[in-house]
Amino acid sequence: MTDFVKTSGNNHILELILNRQEKKNALTQDMYLSLAENIEKANNDDEVRVILIRAEGESFCAGNDLNDFVKDTNLDDAAPVVRFLLALANNNKPLVAAIQGSAVGIGTTLLLHCDLVYARDDTRFCLPFVHLGACVEGGGSRLLPALCGYQKAAELLLLGERFDVQEAKSFGLVTRIIEQQSAENAAREACEKISRLPPDAVQTTRRLMKEHDRPAVLSTIQRELTEFQRLLQTEDSKQRLAAVLKR
Amino acid sequence: MTDFVKTSGNNHILELILNRQEKKNALTQDMYLSLAENIEKANNDDEVRVILIRAEGESFCAGNDLNDFVKDTNLDDAAPVVRFLLALANNNKPLVAAIQGSAVGIGTTLLLHCDLVYARDDTRFCLPFVHLGACVEGGGSRLLPALCGYQKAAELLLLGERFDVQEAKSFGLVTRIIEQQSAENAAREACEKISRLPPDAVQTTRRLMKEHDRPAVLSTIQRELTEFQRLLQTEDSKQRLAAVLKR
Amino acid sequence: MTDFVKTSGNNHILELILNRQEKKNALTQDMYLSLAENIEKANNDDEVRVILIRAEGESFCAGNDLNDFVKDTNLDDAAPVVRFLLALANNNKPLVAAIQGSAVGIGTTLLLHCDLVYARDDTRFCLPFVHLGACVEGGGSRLLPALCGYQKAAELLLLGERFDVQEAKSFGLVTRIIEQQSAENAAREACEKISRLPPDAVQTTRRLMKEHDRPAVLSTIQRELTEFQRLLQTEDSKQRLAAVLKR
Repeated sequence: MTDFVKTSGNNHILELILNRQEKKNALTQDMYLSLAENIEKANNDDEVRVILIRAEGESFCAGNDLNDFVKDTNLDDAAPVVRFLLALANNNKPLVAAIQGSAVGIGTTLLLHCDLVYARDDTRFCLPFVHLGACVEGGGSRLLPALCGYQKAAELLLLGERFDVQEAKSFGLVTRIIEQQSAENAAREACEKISRLPPDAVQTTRRLMKEHDRPAVLSTIQRELTEFQRLLQTEDSKQRLAAVLKR
Repeated sequence: MTDFVKTSGNNHILELILNRQEKKNALTQDMYLSLAENIEKANNDDEVRVILIRAEGESFCAGNDLNDFVKDTNLDDAAPVVRFLLALANNNKPLVAAIQGSAVGIGTTLLLHCDLVYARDDTRFCLPFVHLGACVEGGGSRLLPALCGYQKAAELLLLGERFDVQEAKSFGLVTRIIEQQSAENAAREACEKISRLPPDAVQTTRRLMKEHDRPAVLSTIQRELTEFQRLLQTEDSKQRLAAVLKR
Repeated sequence: MTDFVKTSGNNHILELILNRQEKKNALTQDMYLSLAENIEKANNDDEVRVILIRAEGESFCAGNDLNDFVKDTNLDDAAPVVRFLLALANNNKPLVAAIQGSAVGIGTTLLLHCDLVYARDDTRFCLPFVHLGACVEGGGSRLLPALCGYQKAAELLLLGERFDVQEAKSFGLVTRIIEQQSAENAAREACEKISRLPPDAVQTTRRLMKEHDRPAVLSTIQRELTEFQRLLQTEDSKQRLAAVLKR
């Protein structure tokens, strides 16, 4: 598998570590596949009680690797990015994120599937899909309005501008802001607390919260992917992607 | 058509301007019809990429013209107010509002259908339906709890008291508060940004956010109207409306 | 009936007063039954326009009486706690709470069914179900994420830690914080305002907000109870309850 995703596990905590620092941890097909497989495996492994996702370097995740957008991308259920999104939506283990720097595109939408998000105070977010002539993915068109209300979601998705960690905290995407240091310790502490609780109680509580909306989230992901794929073929999108890649 | 609604269009932006200042832009049947027709037309006009709704004078909109309440109002789908509410709920173009002063009744509930709401710092809101012996309309019984949580929605709808722009911002109804000047420029700037983005990407993003809930919003509007019409015939409502009109 | 629930009614306001101060108003089977019957009766009594729930002593409610958890608890629809939860979910009269001190477990989840919550500034909340090897009840797995967003709900339910009244207000569970005095007067004032409004308009407004989600809330309550009962039989839960009872 790819070296861009490292894993580490002990004390019932599985760590998934993005490690493609020179590209601000932009996600490649191999990285999606590794993340998906690890999440799927963790769901079938009683030893894993909580998953921690974090990233090496100055940024959490700059989004989908832009070069992949311009390839003739197939987005059926076997496609790595699709498999990753479905693994996230079907995941039944508590998922904790420690983030910093940039969280862009899927680097933000994946957080919508997390339970707890610890963010260093320099974290900034962006959902720039419309600027690329594309649309939101990962269930964001359903999960984001549910989280922060329609008008805030519309602002973030229709204008596609950056927002900072205070704003993300104010509408509930971020659990806690960590001042002037990595969010890793706070996130790991939360993971340890959860790992010491009865796993059946924890996972049942989580399933009760998630299960009733899961079919709708899964079908939202599919609808978004259909539109995403269609939009990538439009002239507007091709031009905008070409312009960004030339930078 | 009525002079109480002015329109203006250029650069892909359709402006709908309430202009019945002597009545604080309270909405008449003619005004509803003009707004409805313009929104419907804009949805079939590729040139229109974003709709800006704003108002001349010191107030955005004092609500439904109270004299209309005491007439034998028919509220079927052809009724102007119903046509306006359905046009709002079915609208697929980004809808931006610039508001100031009073936003009362439908002057507040229509904002629930907007994407971005820019408010001058003097804006105050009220959903006084119960004080008239009536009930909320425009899908507010669904959209308001979804936006701000059940308890806040219950407070605003069951007590029917005024709330200010800071509160509206805190629960997500207002995108930005504009200090000591008209919100028109900020709203127009947002419209211009949206108008320069690929319209397919923008409208697809918006549809993904809206579509899954639209059937429920439409049936909520109908249920509310049935109750609204019934309540207007009660003695409690007739007395309260008469008392207000005598003021 | 039990002396641990007092009632008082005048001016269209029914007061339900928890009064088991020596146990911080932890709820017994008799108390659930009394609360359920009073809420059911109020729903069939046109004289009652609003229900006020409050508590004598320094705490609102310490939750379910822990001794009851270790008995062989039957949780079918006739069980007192189930009847209470169903009465809450089916209630059609405005429900106002005045709270102080501890609001733990069902002492917090019952607030999710209230319309207005007035809290003394010393109120602290806790949803410690996972620490007992159990899961959330009372529809909380649906109502809490709907109120405050998934990530905040996950934090409160998966970590099960205390939170204070400022936090509860920030995500909408608390209507108003009352500084340095009982919340009873503010709550009663709100009740009086509601009692002077046309009851048909008030109850219709409330039904419009509640009705569309009620079937889902009721089935959530049932799913939670099934899991709750199952979890209480696990070794993890038995050990944790025994440890807490030994304190």
